[in-house]
Amino acid sequence: MAFTPTDYDPYDFANRRHIGPSPAEMAEMCAALQVTDLDALIAETVPEAIRQETPLDFGAPLSERQLLFEMRQIAKKNQVLTTMIGQGYHGTVTPPAIQRNILENPAWYTAYTPYQPEISQGRLEALLNYQTMVSDLTGLEIANASLLDEATACAEAMTMAMRVAKSKARAFFVDENCHPQNIAVMKTRAEPLGIEVIVGAPESLDPEAVFGAIFQYPGTYGDLQDFSQPIAALHAAGALGIVSADPMALCLLKEPGAMGADIAVGSTQRFGVPMGYGGPHAAYIATKDDYKRALPGRLVGVSVDAHGNRAYRLALQTREQHIRREKATSNVCTAQALLAVMAGFYAVFHGPEGLKAIAQRIHLKAATLAEGLREAGFKVLTEEFFDTVTVDVGLFQRGILSAAVKEGVNLRPVGKTRVGITLDETTRPEKIESVWRAFGIDRGYAETEAYRLPEALLRQSAYLQHDVFHMNRAETEMMRYMRRLADRDLALDRAMIPLGSCTMKLNSAAEMMPVSWPEFSMLHPYCPKDQAAGYTQLITDLNAKLCEITGYDAISMQPNSGAQGEYAGLLTIAAWHKAQGQGHRNVCLIPVNAHGTNPASAQMVGWKVVSVKCDEKGSIDLEDFRAKAEKHSADLAGTMITYPSTHGVFETEVKEVCAITHEHGGQVYIDGANMNAMVGLSKPGDLGGDVSHLNLHKTFCIPHGGGGPGMGPIGVKAHLAPYLPGDPVKGGDGPGPVSAAPFGSPSLLPISWAYIKMTGGAGLTQATKVAILNANYIAKRLVGAFDVLYRGHAGRVAHECIIDVRPFQKSAGITVDDIAKRLIDCGFHAPTMSWPVAGTLMVEPTESETKAELDRFCDAMLAIREEIRAIEEGRMDAENNPLKHAPHTMEDLVRDWDRPYAREQGCFPPGAFRVDKYWPPVNRVDNVYGDRHLVCTCPPMEDYAEAAE
Amino acid sequence: MAFTPTDYDPYDFANRRHIGPSPAEMAEMCAALQVTDLDALIAETVPEAIRQETPLDFGAPLSERQLLFEMRQIAKKNQVLTTMIGQGYHGTVTPPAIQRNILENPAWYTAYTPYQPEISQGRLEALLNYQTMVSDLTGLEIANASLLDEATACAEAMTMAMRVAKSKARAFFVDENCHPQNIAVMKTRAEPLGIEVIVGAPESLDPEAVFGAIFQYPGTYGDLQDFSQPIAALHAAGALGIVSADPMALCLLKEPGAMGADIAVGSTQRFGVPMGYGGPHAAYIATKDDYKRALPGRLVGVSVDAHGNRAYRLALQTREQHIRREKATSNVCTAQALLAVMAGFYAVFHGPEGLKAIAQRIHLKAATLAEGLREAGFKVLTEEFFDTVTVDVGLFQRGILSAAVKEGVNLRPVGKTRVGITLDETTRPEKIESVWRAFGIDRGYAETEAYRLPEALLRQSAYLQHDVFHMNRAETEMMRYMRRLADRDLALDRAMIPLGSCTMKLNSAAEMMPVSWPEFSMLHPYCPKDQAAGYTQLITDLNAKLCEITGYDAISMQPNSGAQGEYAGLLTIAAWHKAQGQGHRNVCLIPVNAHGTNPASAQMVGWKVVSVKCDEKGSIDLEDFRAKAEKHSADLAGTMITYPSTHGVFETEVKEVCAITHEHGGQVYIDGANMNAMVGLSKPGDLGGDVSHLNLHKTFCIPHGGGGPGMGPIGVKAHLAPYLPGDPVKGGDGPGPVSAAPFGSPSLLPISWAYIKMTGGAGLTQATKVAILNANYIAKRLVGAFDVLYRGHAGRVAHECIIDVRPFQKSAGITVDDIAKRLIDCGFHAPTMSWPVAGTLMVEPTESETKAELDRFCDAMLAIREEIRAIEEGRMDAENNPLKHAPHTMEDLVRDWDRPYAREQGCFPPGAFRVDKYWPPVNRVDNVYGDRHLVCTCPPMEDYAEAAE
Repeated sequence: MAFTPTDYDPYDFANRRHIGPSPAEMAEMCAALQVTDLDALIAETVPEAIRQETPLDFGAPLSERQLLFEMRQIAKKNQVLTTMIGQGYHGTVTPPAIQRNILENPAWYTAYTPYQPEISQGRLEALLNYQTMVSDLTGLEIANASLLDEATACAEAMTMAMRVAKSKARAFFVDENCHPQNIAVMKTRAEPLGIEVIVGAPESLDPEAVFGAIFQYPGTYGDLQDFSQPIAALHAAGALGIVSADPMALCLLKEPGAMGADIAVGSTQRFGVPMGYGGPHAAYIATKDDYKRALPGRLVGVSVDAHGNRAYRLALQTREQHIRREKATSNVCTAQALLAVMAGFYAVFHGPEGLKAIAQRIHLKAATLAEGLREAGFKVLTEEFFDTVTVDVGLFQRGILSAAVKEGVNLRPVGKTRVGITLDETTRPEKIESVWRAFGIDRGYAETEAYRLPEALLRQSAYLQHDVFHMNRAETEMMRYMRRLADRDLALDRAMIPLGSCTMKLNSAAEMMPVSWPEFSMLHPYCPKDQAAGYTQLITDLNAKLCEITGYDAISMQPNSGAQGEYAGLLTIAAWHKAQGQGHRNVCLIPVNAHGTNPASAQMVGWKVVSVKCDEKGSIDLEDFRAKAEKHSADLAGTMITYPSTHGVFETEVKEVCAITHEHGGQVYIDGANMNAMVGLSKPGDLGGDVSHLNLHKTFCIPHGGGGPGMGPIGVKAHLAPYLPGDPVKGGDGPGPVSAAPFGSPSLLPISWAYIKMTGGAGLTQATKVAILNANYIAKRLVGAFDVLYRGHAGRVAHECIIDVRPFQKSAGITVDDIAKRLIDCGFHAPTMSWPVAGTLMVEPTESETKAELDRFCDAMLAIREEIRAIEEGRMDAENNPLKHAPHTMEDLVRDWDRPYAREQGCFPPGAFRVDKYWPPVNRVDNVYGDRHLVCTCPPMEDYAEAAE
Repeated sequence: MAFTPTDYDPYDFANRRHIGPSPAEMAEMCAALQVTDLDALIAETVPEAIRQETPLDFGAPLSERQLLFEMRQIAKKNQVLTTMIGQGYHGTVTPPAIQRNILENPAWYTAYTPYQPEISQGRLEALLNYQTMVSDLTGLEIANASLLDEATACAEAMTMAMRVAKSKARAFFVDENCHPQNIAVMKTRAEPLGIEVIVGAPESLDPEAVFGAIFQYPGTYGDLQDFSQPIAALHAAGALGIVSADPMALCLLKEPGAMGADIAVGSTQRFGVPMGYGGPHAAYIATKDDYKRALPGRLVGVSVDAHGNRAYRLALQTREQHIRREKATSNVCTAQALLAVMAGFYAVFHGPEGLKAIAQRIHLKAATLAEGLREAGFKVLTEEFFDTVTVDVGLFQRGILSAAVKEGVNLRPVGKTRVGITLDETTRPEKIESVWRAFGIDRGYAETEAYRLPEALLRQSAYLQHDVFHMNRAETEMMRYMRRLADRDLALDRAMIPLGSCTMKLNSAAEMMPVSWPEFSMLHPYCPKDQAAGYTQLITDLNAKLCEITGYDAISMQPNSGAQGEYAGLLTIAAWHKAQGQGHRNVCLIPVNAHGTNPASAQMVGWKVVSVKCDEKGSIDLEDFRAKAEKHSADLAGTMITYPSTHGVFETEVKEVCAITHEHGGQVYIDGANMNAMVGLSKPGDLGGDVSHLNLHKTFCIPHGGGGPGMGPIGVKAHLAPYLPGDPVKGGDGPGPVSAAPFGSPSLLPISWAYIKMTGGAGLTQATKVAILNANYIAKRLVGAFDVLYRGHAGRVAHECIIDVRPFQKSAGITVDDIAKRLIDCGFHAPTMSWPVAGTLMVEPTESETKAELDRFCDAMLAIREEIRAIEEGRMDAENNPLKHAPHTMEDLVRDWDRPYAREQGCFPPGAFRVDKYWPPVNRVDNVYGDRHLVCTCPPMEDYAEAAE
């Protein structure tokens, strides 16, 4: 063996770490597909007409180490000052045990949304804890599993109030003490829906004129007010009262429920979730039991399994494919699950005593600060407050703000003459002295005992009385609780999650690491921009790369979910039309196979949805499309399509669809949900798209977090750039903002940037090709056993394939559900069920899965087919069989076994690991029971014990 | 509810996070023990005579956040330069997936040593991968599961050679090209054993004069030499040849086995384990099959379980309680399991192609560097090399070294006129240009293609051919493999590990976090001291605190295990005697119940061990002690005792034992293994101890890592301070070093410092008290079912208790093993078995366990007692019962069940979690089979498949 330098690159992240199949495996798979190589497959699969001309080129890809080194240089450009800006974002102490065991643990962050409850009991319990916490703190009966941010939660509350209010008024009152970004986002949302937003002092509210009103508590400038009176007046007028409340303040103060509020919203960010320059964090929404069916977003509820044991599940499901299309009034389909889980654990970790103590400490620090200011003669405008005071400083505003920055503290400019100061859990006494110094006060910190809370607003009710909030909270206990819950769930760290509706690819450790760095996690979204130079650099560069990838000219990072992206994109189009004097255009063409969120989003911008047919191959019916475009030519606002189609096919007509739309004065929205089949091969902007959103949590490696966070930035062509969403605080002439923070959830962006930098242009393209290879390999292996719906030319699928299992309903009484649950026995998360075609399974393996894992899945599917055949042929009972009893639990094994098939067959079908088998903690969950007996807070502990027995 | 500031402290780490039982639980437990409060229990338990007078006071304890803040300030004082010092320590890239999923994952780092193989299959497989890697790379048949560091591995190899060599010579030859620290530690070890160490050039070796010789490969100055000739000559003389080899170099170079070497040792640090200012990392030792029974340390082997399935276990066990007391020639009983696991995964991650590519890149960078130096006219002394060159720079040494530091690079001073430069995986081309600039060369990096390896030394054989090193190495695959292995094991993150022989307390996330910080992890142990100012501050402060806790005056951080601490302590005593002109003193009194390492350590310093009897209460027989002290008065070197005794009792006679020893001119060594029962209550230094070691991995929260790392610093009284171990490189007049690095494994020290700072003096004392409470509570709950051996006055135990299960052997044929395995069914790691008393169980719950967990354990034990009773009373078969079949696996449930007890009883005894049950992956492991059919490398994959079926 002479010394011949090897060309094996151990640091090749793209091909060796991110992409699952090895070169040898890829060769085998190509052979199975009867193509000479990967490029031959792609040539057969992706029409030449839509291929991009020049390959992506982002320079040499970085190794993991180089990436972390470069990221460190960027991070250093962000300055972490002490934050006292407030305005809905606060310093918080993330307990290290939660950081390590939840935020940095792939068992939690790689999980998918808990649509398959049997493999999601852990995070469902964690989310139920969160809901219970919100319900308790707000004093309202029911809370959902989180919303995107406080501002969008306010907007959701507004539209929910409109849905349920008896009042027929079309105006909505907004307390002028609401955070500016909340007001701005509500205004954006209100306009296309024809809601008039009246901003004013609570005293000016005319209850008869509105269907609802929202109040901020504490007010954005720190004041505290009891809203019982205006809410009573609203009720008398058939309108709803909404309170946007800080949950930390609610640990000391009278809760919205006690004021009679119908809805409460707010952010749980300060419950252990770092500010992250704006997000992600979990916003909450809670309401009265009466309104539970109007609650937007996801709701965890309690039900029973096939053996009658307690089991959690999503109740009253409103997932994207269940979004009621054009009938919807909300397109919310993402929660902030990971962040809600963290906030819930923060409450479990501290319990009611701990939360109360923390809230008290914050208050007493704020009282001490105010005392110092007052005694020095400053005009503190806030008489009674929780954590925030506003000071009238006249002409000295700029001087004080900059003196504070020199002291390492960011204060909030309010108007031109006032300064806001908000304290939090992390405020050190030295930093209060720093603030005093910025005001020219030389004073040592000595904590006051005089509180400044209004006696009448002190909270009278108890909260967090459930046992889970009264554990020992010793770290040993907490760590084991987190581990137990994690172990109940099946996430990407144990098996492929082959979802057609979501791209569940690798979220690599190197990509994830920077998220925890203080320079990214501890910035306030409204800090002085020069302190966020690292973020600016990273976002600017990421924007440029995403433009290159998509063929667009500008990006807005604001939307923090895919559905938000759709909505923001349509708002942008509408604003452009208006600027062209075409503000009347309000018809949107959407093919019937579109994501349910598409029509829902169109509805939200006030457009009328006109459906377009699809042919039997699942492609848009061009004739129908042309006819409808012509018919609505004068009013055509736009077309929304998904590419490649939701049927998993590269349609060749896409350019024509775009051209027709443009001919008739419309704009084209190309949904980026399937971008993982395009990167490096084809650009939506080149195909004729004017706008697309990108799911960074699908294509660009942001983890799903068990049902959020997400990021849905939009790319637009140059002509639309001026009409992108505006800044949530600074405002502007263009459209309003769609999110509370200028860049949505920026602390996630290092993940996508890292992915692109480590993978490189060629690597990204290769990833796309391998995603297509993997899907075609599965389609090929299942030939003969299952029909694959919708193939493109040459019989190829794109990056996903739809497996038709409808015939088995008739032949053997086997449903798509039975197959999905049986896959759990095999150690898999089920593919997407019944979408886009009812009764089918849509499979998307992604490029990150190895051939071995694909084969394991195919083996499982083929074995399931044989079980179905046994029923078809009468060799197996139609009811008493492994498919109907799936999933099997350990409890089944322990019980007497009186089934006509062996324990072995039941529990260890092909695909199942032997030693490392994943056992679902419950048998099949009864959804109907749960919806009929809706319980959405933690059940009493004794019930747990019963369930366990 | 008025505003009354609560006195609940949510940031009280000691009482709320570290200590398991809540105040309410403690009150219940005190009531059960019939004492009014905790202090009353302590008064009954800890004799007044040994109590310390003043409470510990380390100022106000820090919150987790404060701790991390202060730690950050300290970390900043360490400067991370590019390291090119070499000398056995190298920059390395820890793959982020390994860092996150192993090093920072409690499932790996909180595990105990795999003595209970059924619950340790995951890390046993990981360690077998490591052994296979070492065996392959060195070309020797058998490798152990790691040693403490390369220098001690050299010393172990030397004594092993002495044990097995046919030659009767008493001298040992050491290649002068060995790393200085290796030479120093071997000299230290050799002296008391009467071995003459001859240091010289390999050419000067006289094979007839020695029982063995060790060569460094590559040499410390970079040279490469084929040792086949001298080794053949050694063999001819009945002596052994040892090669200390860099495993990275072995990826390109002829392996020691191919040179005929009998033993190979070295460090696997550069396989992904950060330098950490000296440690911890895993050293390796490998040998020929012939010598396997002489191999020190732990060895993982393959065996079968009760059903004949493949199972891993520790082979030829040499755990501390098995150490053959005074017959031993090694006291090694700790491995570096966590670090060996990391190094093994590094090899799995990169595979042979990757390792070869990395080694080639390192070499070509070094060749390029050397070319640049040569072409500029510098005298590069190393003609052929792997990664290290030495340059003769005459008078310019200082100037070049300091110019390099200014360029951000540390080079190695060699003698007064030479400079050593060692490159590694992390070296950036820019930094090679920096080195050139430090030499005054202005040259741009352009990689040479000319290699500088001797053609004759190129490796001819393949390595890492087992399938595990040929996985796809996609991160998805790797992550799942790491998760699967983790899930097979039961660690502290799932259940109490109630070991009497080890204090398995909480290793909190906050304590662990700084270990990953580059400022702690990336320092070279021999970097300029001013670059390690943070370490110096931290170590100085930790020393002061440990002195305060122990009553000693000085600390040496050098020993990196408890046994090393004992050895270092005795060396210190021996050196002191010598300095007093009492060098002849060589008798050591050791009670029969001492840790087995005590006599082994005494042996290592050349002392004769005289055993002292114990009375029936387990206390030292004072009369026997006095008699033996008198008898050996002239030669008495010292006494080794453990306090509280290994029987778990505070003996009141301890002060008398110390006084008697001193009267007769001896010194007292108090083993600190049970320090967790003393901190804040009693100081060994006050009792009369002259030296103690502290197991920082027991009492001071360093995690066990599944069998290492450990840290065993020693505290000494002032008179002994000058005789503490010397610096491994700088040397000195006093005793030699015992470890390769001046502070042992310093990257672990932030953990202990964090624990002390967050817990505070009162908190540490409270922790001790609660540890005693928890042990007494268990003892109390088991009354009537089991006898507790050895109680102190008032019937109390210390922090552990011995449960006598010997009677059941006779009454029911049930052994301690049966009970230990049955506890696995209940979801517990067994207590320490058969030590210090054969046939008993020793239980130490620690302060970190909650009452709920203690109750779960007691419920399990009581149920086991009832199962035994059923056998005793003939209601249950003596062979076919749940105890004999324990542990039960899922396989048992799937099989036909023909047992006289129910599946339910077998698998879900009291204590077992229902939904979250831990299932061992194998049934009871057959130890005898494994030792008879010793296999210590990965078995072929097909065997795995068989085993799985």
